Amino acid sequence: MATAAGEGLVPNGQLPAQPYYPPGLSMPHYAPNTLPLWQLFAYFLSALGSFLGVLCVIAVLMKPQFRRASLSDKALFVWFTMCYFVMNHASLAGDQSFRAQLWKEYALSDSRYLTSDPFMLCVEGLTVVVHGTLSFAAAAAIVDGVGLPAGSSGLRHILQMLVSTVHLFGVLLYYGTLLFQEALQGASHCRPEFLYRWVYFGAMNAPWVVVPIYILYSSASQICQVFVAANGANTGKANRAEPTKKTQ
Amino acid sequence: MATAAGEGLVPNGQLPAQPYYPPGLSMPHYAPNTLPLWQLFAYFLSALGSFLGVLCVIAVLMKPQFRRASLSDKALFVWFTMCYFVMNHASLAGDQSFRAQLWKEYALSDSRYLTSDPFMLCVEGLTVVVHGTLSFAAAAAIVDGVGLPAGSSGLRHILQMLVSTVHLFGVLLYYGTLLFQEALQGASHCRPEFLYRWVYFGAMNAPWVVVPIYILYSSASQICQVFVAANGANTGKANRAEPTKKTQ
Repeated sequence: MATAAGEGLVPNGQLPAQPYYPPGLSMPHYAPNTLPLWQLFAYFLSALGSFLGVLCVIAVLMKPQFRRASLSDKALFVWFTMCYFVMNHASLAGDQSFRAQLWKEYALSDSRYLTSDPFMLCVEGLTVVVHGTLSFAAAAAIVDGVGLPAGSSGLRHILQMLVSTVHLFGVLLYYGTLLFQEALQGASHCRPEFLYRWVYFGAMNAPWVVVPIYILYSSASQICQVFVAANGANTGKANRAEPTKKTQ
Repeated sequence: MATAAGEGLVPNGQLPAQPYYPPGLSMPHYAPNTLPLWQLFAYFLSALGSFLGVLCVIAVLMKPQFRRASLSDKALFVWFTMCYFVMNHASLAGDQSFRAQLWKEYALSDSRYLTSDPFMLCVEGLTVVVHGTLSFAAAAAIVDGVGLPAGSSGLRHILQMLVSTVHLFGVLLYYGTLLFQEALQGASHCRPEFLYRWVYFGAMNAPWVVVPIYILYSSASQICQVFVAANGANTGKANRAEPTKKTQ
């Protein structure tokens, strides 16, 4: 696709009236953004920051021990509340609000957000309802489990695994459908410039590959540990147990 | 879509040369199936039956206690080995083999299987590699965990939850993309006759909604139980534990 790099740009290097890919995509209701990029990002980051700040305060008020939680527990709490915020921001309104303008900017890296693509509509619907709700529940379960002897509740790891599997699977399908479409039909929904292809489409989605893998590994280890202890030290219906050690 | 029920049928009620939906879909390489439906299903069921039979024998040989496992453990073992078999059958070869003819029959309920749809290619790729492998691993973990004091290993529940989440999410997207496309673009990839729409497309995929929900519930309960025991009876770094009972 290297030769297509300049396609869709008007001669002076500015984006044309309808800048989305593939060129010639029908978007009769398109209106260009009225706000500069830095204002859009400043709005997004300040909204996200305020949201996270308020949630952290609420968490500490409801569970003072959360102050002394491990750094990784705190980081995961921030991750899941951030996911909730981003997922709920994903539904695009048809107006000129900050949020709509932000998504019109992001759609330069994936025009399917603006064209009622059936796959995207499904993923977005599931995203808001399932990912959003489960992310919030996972964040709450982290706070609620602070101070338990095993370090966390079973519910926390169940929610973490559910959300992370769905995130990972969702982002792989998201990357995959765009790249397959490009390879098979020769038409990409992503503008080829570095900013759009590698920063917006690539890098901005990559955390939903990396972090869920870490979380799945972490939750799986803790679930295994607790089962190993149960299988090793349990009494009762044991029929192959060789208890390795007993407490008390 | 009621008025479209007869569309695509030639006057004598037989399927036309290219019977897939939406009518007019370009399929230059289409060749009609040479085998009758009952032979295709007989082939599929006997292949599936033999596969399950062999796997059950292997399971009992490797772990004689599996004979005395609970009915639900045995049923889940059969479920996951069946998933593995079906997932690995999902990749469509371009020849006239039994397998290809089977999928050409199923594609009457979803022509995306024959048209290199980007979403379907992604889902199928993930299906064979991820779902197939994880389903097989889950089946193995069920057998391996038989006879443990807690009734199962942590790995079993981790694998069960991963596979079931991916199955559930996958089938919801599968249903969703076809129905959204139908609603938004007015063109369905599924023939409207009862057999294709409700039996092939609807009922034959429904187990991947119902069974994963049951498995998620079951694994989540067992993980929670083990954590509750760990949090209630554990010693050491407890800082809010009120042990409810202690063994020994």
